[in-house]
Amino acid sequence: MSQDSRYSSIHYNSYLQLDRVLSSQELRSESLGAPAHDEMLFIIIHQVYELWFKQINHELRSVAALFSEQRVNEKSVGVAVARLGRVSEIFKVLIQQITVLETMTPLDFLDFRNYLFPASGFQSFQFREMEVMLGLKADRRHTYNDKPYNVVFDKEKKEKLDQLEHSRSLLELVEDWLERTPFLELGDFHFLKYYRAAVKRMLDRESEAIRNTDILSDEYKAMRLKMLGDTESYFAGIMDEKKHEAMLAQRKVTISYKATVAALFIHLYRDEPILHLPYQLLSRLVEIDDQVTTWRYRHAQMVMRMLGKKVGTGGSSGHEYLANTAMRHHIFADFHNVSTLLIPRSDLPELPEELKRNLGFYFTAVNA
Amino acid sequence: MSQDSRYSSIHYNSYLQLDRVLSSQELRSESLGAPAHDEMLFIIIHQVYELWFKQINHELRSVAALFSEQRVNEKSVGVAVARLGRVSEIFKVLIQQITVLETMTPLDFLDFRNYLFPASGFQSFQFREMEVMLGLKADRRHTYNDKPYNVVFDKEKKEKLDQLEHSRSLLELVEDWLERTPFLELGDFHFLKYYRAAVKRMLDRESEAIRNTDILSDEYKAMRLKMLGDTESYFAGIMDEKKHEAMLAQRKVTISYKATVAALFIHLYRDEPILHLPYQLLSRLVEIDDQVTTWRYRHAQMVMRMLGKKVGTGGSSGHEYLANTAMRHHIFADFHNVSTLLIPRSDLPELPEELKRNLGFYFTAVNA
Amino acid sequence: MSQDSRYSSIHYNSYLQLDRVLSSQELRSESLGAPAHDEMLFIIIHQVYELWFKQINHELRSVAALFSEQRVNEKSVGVAVARLGRVSEIFKVLIQQITVLETMTPLDFLDFRNYLFPASGFQSFQFREMEVMLGLKADRRHTYNDKPYNVVFDKEKKEKLDQLEHSRSLLELVEDWLERTPFLELGDFHFLKYYRAAVKRMLDRESEAIRNTDILSDEYKAMRLKMLGDTESYFAGIMDEKKHEAMLAQRKVTISYKATVAALFIHLYRDEPILHLPYQLLSRLVEIDDQVTTWRYRHAQMVMRMLGKKVGTGGSSGHEYLANTAMRHHIFADFHNVSTLLIPRSDLPELPEELKRNLGFYFTAVNA
Amino acid sequence: MSQDSRYSSIHYNSYLQLDRVLSSQELRSESLGAPAHDEMLFIIIHQVYELWFKQINHELRSVAALFSEQRVNEKSVGVAVARLGRVSEIFKVLIQQITVLETMTPLDFLDFRNYLFPASGFQSFQFREMEVMLGLKADRRHTYNDKPYNVVFDKEKKEKLDQLEHSRSLLELVEDWLERTPFLELGDFHFLKYYRAAVKRMLDRESEAIRNTDILSDEYKAMRLKMLGDTESYFAGIMDEKKHEAMLAQRKVTISYKATVAALFIHLYRDEPILHLPYQLLSRLVEIDDQVTTWRYRHAQMVMRMLGKKVGTGGSSGHEYLANTAMRHHIFADFHNVSTLLIPRSDLPELPEELKRNLGFYFTAVNA
Repeated sequence: MSQDSRYSSIHYNSYLQLDRVLSSQELRSESLGAPAHDEMLFIIIHQVYELWFKQINHELRSVAALFSEQRVNEKSVGVAVARLGRVSEIFKVLIQQITVLETMTPLDFLDFRNYLFPASGFQSFQFREMEVMLGLKADRRHTYNDKPYNVVFDKEKKEKLDQLEHSRSLLELVEDWLERTPFLELGDFHFLKYYRAAVKRMLDRESEAIRNTDILSDEYKAMRLKMLGDTESYFAGIMDEKKHEAMLAQRKVTISYKATVAALFIHLYRDEPILHLPYQLLSRLVEIDDQVTTWRYRHAQMVMRMLGKKVGTGGSSGHEYLANTAMRHHIFADFHNVSTLLIPRSDLPELPEELKRNLGFYFTAVNA
Repeated sequence: MSQDSRYSSIHYNSYLQLDRVLSSQELRSESLGAPAHDEMLFIIIHQVYELWFKQINHELRSVAALFSEQRVNEKSVGVAVARLGRVSEIFKVLIQQITVLETMTPLDFLDFRNYLFPASGFQSFQFREMEVMLGLKADRRHTYNDKPYNVVFDKEKKEKLDQLEHSRSLLELVEDWLERTPFLELGDFHFLKYYRAAVKRMLDRESEAIRNTDILSDEYKAMRLKMLGDTESYFAGIMDEKKHEAMLAQRKVTISYKATVAALFIHLYRDEPILHLPYQLLSRLVEIDDQVTTWRYRHAQMVMRMLGKKVGTGGSSGHEYLANTAMRHHIFADFHNVSTLLIPRSDLPELPEELKRNLGFYFTAVNA
Repeated sequence: MSQDSRYSSIHYNSYLQLDRVLSSQELRSESLGAPAHDEMLFIIIHQVYELWFKQINHELRSVAALFSEQRVNEKSVGVAVARLGRVSEIFKVLIQQITVLETMTPLDFLDFRNYLFPASGFQSFQFREMEVMLGLKADRRHTYNDKPYNVVFDKEKKEKLDQLEHSRSLLELVEDWLERTPFLELGDFHFLKYYRAAVKRMLDRESEAIRNTDILSDEYKAMRLKMLGDTESYFAGIMDEKKHEAMLAQRKVTISYKATVAALFIHLYRDEPILHLPYQLLSRLVEIDDQVTTWRYRHAQMVMRMLGKKVGTGGSSGHEYLANTAMRHHIFADFHNVSTLLIPRSDLPELPEELKRNLGFYFTAVNA
Repeated sequence: MSQDSRYSSIHYNSYLQLDRVLSSQELRSESLGAPAHDEMLFIIIHQVYELWFKQINHELRSVAALFSEQRVNEKSVGVAVARLGRVSEIFKVLIQQITVLETMTPLDFLDFRNYLFPASGFQSFQFREMEVMLGLKADRRHTYNDKPYNVVFDKEKKEKLDQLEHSRSLLELVEDWLERTPFLELGDFHFLKYYRAAVKRMLDRESEAIRNTDILSDEYKAMRLKMLGDTESYFAGIMDEKKHEAMLAQRKVTISYKATVAALFIHLYRDEPILHLPYQLLSRLVEIDDQVTTWRYRHAQMVMRMLGKKVGTGGSSGHEYLANTAMRHHIFADFHNVSTLLIPRSDLPELPEELKRNLGFYFTAVNA
């Protein structure tokens, strides 16, 4: 490190390259001789979005790097959790910002909308980068006027996206990491066996409680028992490796059976010290998933208010694309769905001594 | 007014009846001998929601009262706009609050969920009141396990809802008021004729501009001209009273042709003084519509995270209900869609002198 | 307007000049060979702030232009209100964003903080522009290490700020406009006389009510009467032109007596049609004032958490500057304080017919 | 547990005791024959605040209970962190809600303000409970018209607050827990000695770098060296137990020397597994501290806008109380200030093997 330059004086303006950044707003309406006041907002807000996308990708890239290690360092999981938390905070701002664009009325937008054709948010490269890095597969995407989504990018960017699509996404890296979870089999302890037994006990107890209750009508009992039966089949089905493989093939789930079991284990025993941060990690991914979806939804809502049933700026059938989008792009859906497999703490017995020790701190173990 | 009691001393605690309000939280898990810490949050947050619903309904009721007058006072429109703005601010809080409930993990919820059956948000009377007051018709609703939504309420509440459903909702009152807009025909001025001419001029000009552009390919020109043709048909179709009646019959729109034309007029000339507040009113209704929808959506998202694919607490198929709900309950959709009929200001010529005077202030007219 | 270029194809990427904007992030820690991950966030968030400052100044400049007219067009007030509302929405985002920077811990910041000296937020030119445009006078500012605030800018920027400081700020333009309010004297109606009478009636009535109340103790009555006396002196004092001039000279108030009376009139009769938007304008200015202050406060809070008692990055005594700042820079304080002069509607009698007509719509007047 | 009642049917309405809660809003203006529309909002929003205060206190009480154990279970720290995080989310809502009250204009408030005397937020018992539970000492409080703050409560409540004030607050419990941190002395490792050496190395290196830099002017070097000298004295002073005792006596700090050193240790080594949650705990306390302060500040701002310079509803000198309050009530200031003692990671050498093992997981240690 050069000691000299470390102490050379820097100024806010040059450090942030403001001369460059603040001279990058050229209103098309103005260059066409009919300046529309609101076009500045349109440009600025999209540039702000792109700056935040760059930041988000900076964080996601670093988390992917951490999880690309053969053995993911404990510290790395903590750092990953913090950075995904930061991505979450950024998304809150991205969602909040939409209210600023909503101060532009449809009438004001009409003043310069025609000059923007065919530019469209579809052409945001960084947003696609983000989706691919998270784990959105190309075949689950909507098309752009019936062409693949990447038709809008130049050769160089297409190649970058291609490359990204052939790298392991966060979803895949986390799946790999989950599959390496070491605690599922330890000595006499086999988690799945353990879990199935607990589920059975829980269902038996509920069944008996329902049957023995005097104050319920027979009709009501029958309904509750039927619901319990459904729940029973559900649990049984989920815990069947073959069934899971079939659903994987039909794209109804995206992560492996092994990773699913590990995720369940982490959720159930998340208060054990060594599982605390892994649990936080899965929670953060689910939270980001929800926020991306909320952002798409709010964005659709805003476009609808701005355009009614008309098309978006790029010729895309704006409204349909956006409305559906909200429901189709859940990347970490499998982590959401782990909650269907949870059972009450009261039905989860204490872990065997040896396992508890292995899930805990060294200090606790030697000073027990 | 009794001068005496006006100055009698009051204390914060008794004024807010806190002894009553703060002793209304009884944890079911506690009375069953297995206190679940998070059940307090579940109770408190729902009570908070209900208090805010009461406030919202207080505002909506007052706005409906103002619009029930034969001639809606100018001042009333201003008051209505302010109160609807307040409802909007409340909805922002209701949406924000969801993050508090999200601090309860699925595992924690499992600790007391079973004790709540069959209670469910479906049974919130005030929320139904709100929907009905805004203008949601019973036949557009989802059912509750295939029964009408009001099966969950006792006789007294059913009657209240019935009564409300037979009163004029905000949507209907605003429709009535719009139909009474006096400026659409004034002397030689006929708004619709005026508007159609402006639309034609706009389309003609765009068509010529596209044809005369050298730098576009023939293929591209053809596409732009086709889009213009679609837009032309769209405008033509909308401005046809018969076609509108047909769509009304099919429930594709909910307000009358006359009201639609008035809403369009208000949007286009919203900067004219006498139309400023009417425009604000329509905007506020659209904003509230979007917020109710966003709230339903975020609520669905939270329930999904909490339950995965399982059922909601009341036996309702929670997830499907909530997911669809987000898309189906737009009450003021017609006001949203006015934006499809807007044309750029530059294509809207100056209003005739007499009309401008009638849309303006007395002071301006006499001092011109 | 060139019809050709209007239809030339544009791409999202080039329209937003993203190649330029997204290549303006150079991490100092990286160029010094010790890349700090969090420096990217530091750069990006400040660039985002600067983009929003540009947008805010774009809005403020346009509002100043509207109010520079000799006679401010009615439509202009409406446009100004909408644009100030937009500035408000932006400030909500600027305040919300602080939570993103708070995801950077003090320990992380230490990794690159030393490389930033002496750059500091003090050097944000656009922020100073904003303050000056709003109406912050140079002599009310904090110094930068005991030098005038503008010592940090180069010659060109100093000249710009100088120029701005010698133009009329928003505060001054609005003051001018208030002084031109025509309704304060109309025929036999003299607002101040009218107002003083109403204040007297109100105070007399309260005084009598207190005296006649049996249920209060003598001690309590005495206290309430004393408070009433204080209120009386307060009102009397405020409505004295000489006293106001004295306070102006001592810088205890910033706008003229005439403008203050006009602001009071607008507040009291804000529901009269022609005063509705002027009232909104004053409210928006107060709201922005509060938001700038909240932003400074939250920023101080964040810096304190980041630095403890240490100095800020630029050698400024960060904490003291920021803590005091929150309390000292209220630009539109006089508009805040109008609320001290308000009296209940019930104490405000109906306006004379002629005045009401002049405050209303032409249509209402001719169709009464 | 009674199996029977577990399955008895419950209804939303009775579970939430809505008949009770929703019939607790009695408008004083209405009982006095002059109903003010906005009084409903005033009542409802304060009831909502009180419900949330109850929830906050429920969480704080549970965290205090967890920390009252002689040996605070590892799991307990995790639970405490989650619950304090919930309190944080609630405070975000409490702060957001203020915008709802701001939709009530000063003129509207005047319509019923007089009927509320002498009720005042000063009389919120739960808010005082919260302050005391967090750790606010009675002598640091503002008085209520020069009387002790608890003069406004009846005998029963005064006794409760007295009792609370004599229990150990969260601040004290956390201080106790910090003092029990076992890692500060382990074998040959003495944290303080270790830390002082690292500080010296850091300061020496910076000093040399400054001296050896050619590109800085002598004047500039002198200034930077002086700043470094100040920093040096600061560190030296802080790490002196006697000096700390003196500051404790003068109430300039509130926690013991031992607890301060432990907090510093936790901050510096927060990525070590066993310190991760303790670090989160301290962060959460600081965050809540900031939020309470932000809430007080925003509340003051709102009251100022509502009242100008007038008094609050209860005769308290509203504005001064609130303005000062923002700056005086930092309960966890000492945890904020730990950031002044942090040094860059690059200056912090690796921990000795034995210590690292003791700060890590058992699994890592045995599989290393």
